[in-house]
Amino acid sequence: MKYTHHNGELTLKNLNESVHLKGWVAKVRNLGGLLFIDLRDRYGITQLLCKPENSNYQTALKIRNEYVIDIEGLVIERESKNKLMHTGDIEVDITNLTILSTAETPPIMISDESDALEETRLKYRYLDLRRPVMQNYLIKRHEITQSIRRTLVESGFYELETPILGKSTPEGARDYLVPSRLYPGTFFALPQSPQIYKQLFMVAGFEKYFQIARCFRDEDLRADRQPEFTQIDVEASFIDEEDIQNVIEKLMKNLFHDVLNIEIETPFLRMTYLDAMTQYGTDKPDLRYDLKIQNFTNTLKPLNIPLFEGKEFVRSLRIKNASSITRKRIDQLTELVKKNHGDALAYIKFADQALTGSVAKYFTPDVIKDLNLSDQEMIFFVPGTFENTSSALSSLRIALAEELSLIPENEYKFLWVTDWPLLEYNEEEKRYYAMHHPFTAPKDANVLKNDPKHAMAKAYDIVLNGYEIGGGSIRIHNQEVQRLMFDTLGLSKHDIETRFGFFVDALKYGTPPHGGLALGLDRIVMLMTHTSNIKDVIAFPKTQSAKDLMMQAPSEVDINQLNDLMIKVDKS
Amino acid sequence: MKYTHHNGELTLKNLNESVHLKGWVAKVRNLGGLLFIDLRDRYGITQLLCKPENSNYQTALKIRNEYVIDIEGLVIERESKNKLMHTGDIEVDITNLTILSTAETPPIMISDESDALEETRLKYRYLDLRRPVMQNYLIKRHEITQSIRRTLVESGFYELETPILGKSTPEGARDYLVPSRLYPGTFFALPQSPQIYKQLFMVAGFEKYFQIARCFRDEDLRADRQPEFTQIDVEASFIDEEDIQNVIEKLMKNLFHDVLNIEIETPFLRMTYLDAMTQYGTDKPDLRYDLKIQNFTNTLKPLNIPLFEGKEFVRSLRIKNASSITRKRIDQLTELVKKNHGDALAYIKFADQALTGSVAKYFTPDVIKDLNLSDQEMIFFVPGTFENTSSALSSLRIALAEELSLIPENEYKFLWVTDWPLLEYNEEEKRYYAMHHPFTAPKDANVLKNDPKHAMAKAYDIVLNGYEIGGGSIRIHNQEVQRLMFDTLGLSKHDIETRFGFFVDALKYGTPPHGGLALGLDRIVMLMTHTSNIKDVIAFPKTQSAKDLMMQAPSEVDINQLNDLMIKVDKS
Repeated sequence: MKYTHHNGELTLKNLNESVHLKGWVAKVRNLGGLLFIDLRDRYGITQLLCKPENSNYQTALKIRNEYVIDIEGLVIERESKNKLMHTGDIEVDITNLTILSTAETPPIMISDESDALEETRLKYRYLDLRRPVMQNYLIKRHEITQSIRRTLVESGFYELETPILGKSTPEGARDYLVPSRLYPGTFFALPQSPQIYKQLFMVAGFEKYFQIARCFRDEDLRADRQPEFTQIDVEASFIDEEDIQNVIEKLMKNLFHDVLNIEIETPFLRMTYLDAMTQYGTDKPDLRYDLKIQNFTNTLKPLNIPLFEGKEFVRSLRIKNASSITRKRIDQLTELVKKNHGDALAYIKFADQALTGSVAKYFTPDVIKDLNLSDQEMIFFVPGTFENTSSALSSLRIALAEELSLIPENEYKFLWVTDWPLLEYNEEEKRYYAMHHPFTAPKDANVLKNDPKHAMAKAYDIVLNGYEIGGGSIRIHNQEVQRLMFDTLGLSKHDIETRFGFFVDALKYGTPPHGGLALGLDRIVMLMTHTSNIKDVIAFPKTQSAKDLMMQAPSEVDINQLNDLMIKVDKS
Repeated sequence: MKYTHHNGELTLKNLNESVHLKGWVAKVRNLGGLLFIDLRDRYGITQLLCKPENSNYQTALKIRNEYVIDIEGLVIERESKNKLMHTGDIEVDITNLTILSTAETPPIMISDESDALEETRLKYRYLDLRRPVMQNYLIKRHEITQSIRRTLVESGFYELETPILGKSTPEGARDYLVPSRLYPGTFFALPQSPQIYKQLFMVAGFEKYFQIARCFRDEDLRADRQPEFTQIDVEASFIDEEDIQNVIEKLMKNLFHDVLNIEIETPFLRMTYLDAMTQYGTDKPDLRYDLKIQNFTNTLKPLNIPLFEGKEFVRSLRIKNASSITRKRIDQLTELVKKNHGDALAYIKFADQALTGSVAKYFTPDVIKDLNLSDQEMIFFVPGTFENTSSALSSLRIALAEELSLIPENEYKFLWVTDWPLLEYNEEEKRYYAMHHPFTAPKDANVLKNDPKHAMAKAYDIVLNGYEIGGGSIRIHNQEVQRLMFDTLGLSKHDIETRFGFFVDALKYGTPPHGGLALGLDRIVMLMTHTSNIKDVIAFPKTQSAKDLMMQAPSEVDINQLNDLMIKVDKS
């Protein structure tokens, strides 16, 4: 290409060189005849200079923001240097200037700071993405993808593609359907994950597979969900939990080194599901700060506190240096606790040698003494079932950590959560659901058969800073166990046959033991770029109501298209 | 992992080592008590040995083909070596044997040779893929993908993802539609290519983009088409034709080096569309052999051959050493010519100093002398229009090259076909169609405006051994030219607005000059693995009638799913 440099590279080392640059005009300043132009490309900004005596001056005067130009010029030293910019010591004196493309005034500012409405930003996504901060999200995503792929390829995994036009086997989330034209009345479904395909790769003997796979769920969207998302899908044969965890730890170590130049420690901490729930109230605890849940049930029983009467558990969070927590803040925290299934929030506070708080009066001197409270220490209590107190205290824990600035920035704490229950019982529907999915291997098939409620799974989740970034399991590789699992989930023989018949069939021709996991790419990019908006890390996202505001999709289609498919819209 | 070796690596160097292996039983031979087992994994085969005195013998006797087993043993030297196998000098004397998984007799043989029907192979795809020859196709596909990606990443291209749930803008092929649940009566469409998205990446300033992108076309399938296919999608800004061609040549050079250890020459040959049609009758000539079309129109005019009377062109193929071509074969070739729009096939043959053939009697001694024919030389003539003779002679050329064994195996001849017409006129519909697509830049916008029929495109196709493996163009980056293009294609203002409004809009905010291309990954894998069946290079392909025989998709879905979408099937 004819361009000699990009806009992020020229320094005093290039002094007096003739250079050829291109890019977008980020800014034009006319200082009493002297024209300065900031030229931007994906690498950075170079300052250009055009004096009135320059033969290009008349052309330069026409230039507006976001014009695309091509210039030749001479690298000269700046009079007033900008130490914040890599190219801040030099400027380029234009010798030839060509306008490649003009630009109307864009509807949003092309700068890192933007006060445009999200709706406007999404409509003009191609301009929103021109903002350097937004470009950086996708560039990091690119780098993250390359690093992850490198580790997997070097570890002997084959990257294999699976179909997007698959079969509808709804279990859990809703499928996106695609009407078949050749077989009217039948439908393909977009995959919620390549789960079955990747297991079939193991049956087929590929031994190690991965894919950076697009997945689809037609769900009512939450803020951090998109109708289509990308997962790093991994599966291997002849392995156990430890093997797959080792691969992923290596992947993460390389990833953080490659992209952020941060060395993370391996092996990661392992914690059982039960320990996580007991100590943190959640299956994805943020371990960047301590703040564990304590069980006060037995300590408090003798105090006969009316609020805790008849409650199965009283669990608590205990914080030091709580002077900043006002009554008003406690009211807000009480709301938070109730929103998260907590029955109530009670507290005591020790300050200036006195115990105050909503339940302070019930505390006997002995109990107070045993608590060994320091000045400005508080204890929050939530009564209720194990599940409800877990949920409430987990939210309270996060709120308190933020309040007390306990969360270190730029720290990355990984955790494997292991030893999951295999099933959860739905009281309303009177049936079991798979806690992960119906292909997860039980630790003991006999327990699944005889006491499904207590069956444990060979499953593991990977958690980073309080977010589940992936999960997986060793899979069932025995046909009989797979049938037992489907039976336990209440699938009829007919259901099994029509939905998973081919898969159960596949298991009988020599299936190796196998397992794997899937990592959420979007979430990983979010955590590594410190954004809380999933749309920032997806080039062309949908809104929370599953619309593409730029393309105006979904849209009505030609009636002939529907006739071809033999389908009719029926809003009645 | 606990396994010490895979099945493709043990040699005499490992003699007396204790090893731990796993895999599938490819074969069991019981030689008078002595049991030999061929153990297979994705890397190869190792021969195992189990003697009757071995404590594992009773277990070993139970083993059948395709059982999955785990063994420990001692590497010993074979008595009768197999020089064709890398592991053929050794065998492993089993010291411990575990059956991991049993297997019923598979419905197809797990061996390179297969006489199973394609339908059976597709139904049991997970077993078909267990055949080493099939595994190799996908392993090569993996290697090809990695190599291509490496070159693009090293050349500064960002790998960026674009949506699968897009907008329907039918032009050419039919879209697959996805009903929206949240906005009943509206639809997403699966992308036929990421064309618009990648151009928007250029508008957004990413400068160099690529994606290994899934694309979808709901067409009546030909043998080498699939409803979903994968393309290497590339786009760059501030480039011209030569720049993008250079990148792709580097990519191909690295690819053939990395995967096949073949050094291909760059730069590739360039040929204009007109030259290709004139010399080879096709826009994708196979240059592994010469055999050019010659224009005999003027030479033959004075001979007044009735068959050629009133024909615009008489064009021909001239072959030496044609002794093998019989009258019967000529009849077949005549059929071929007619099937490919040829009016007729005539020929002369010079043998034993005599000229024979269907039109020999019209040839005067002077003309014969000028032809300077050698013994056993033939000339085939096809009369008709330029288009029809091109089509007919192109097919004839391939048939003759096969007949005369002119096509060298394992040779790879690349070609850029350049200087394409921008538009083609459809006489029936009385309108122009874009020869590539409506975003292709004209060489001269004034010609497009004033004489569209003669407008030329900044387009280029890349051809390998007679197959188009990719194509691209410099794109329109000027809003007015884009509108002119849509106008010329007969799109109404309303059409432009509803279908491409946002895109035309995008062009006005400073669009860099840009262009790119897309390579067909499936086709490239086919050519590099020497298979003619596209299904061989796709893990889970559809049949020619767009069915997944393994999953039984498309399939009927629950009525609730359709009710959610507010659509009804109407086969009336």
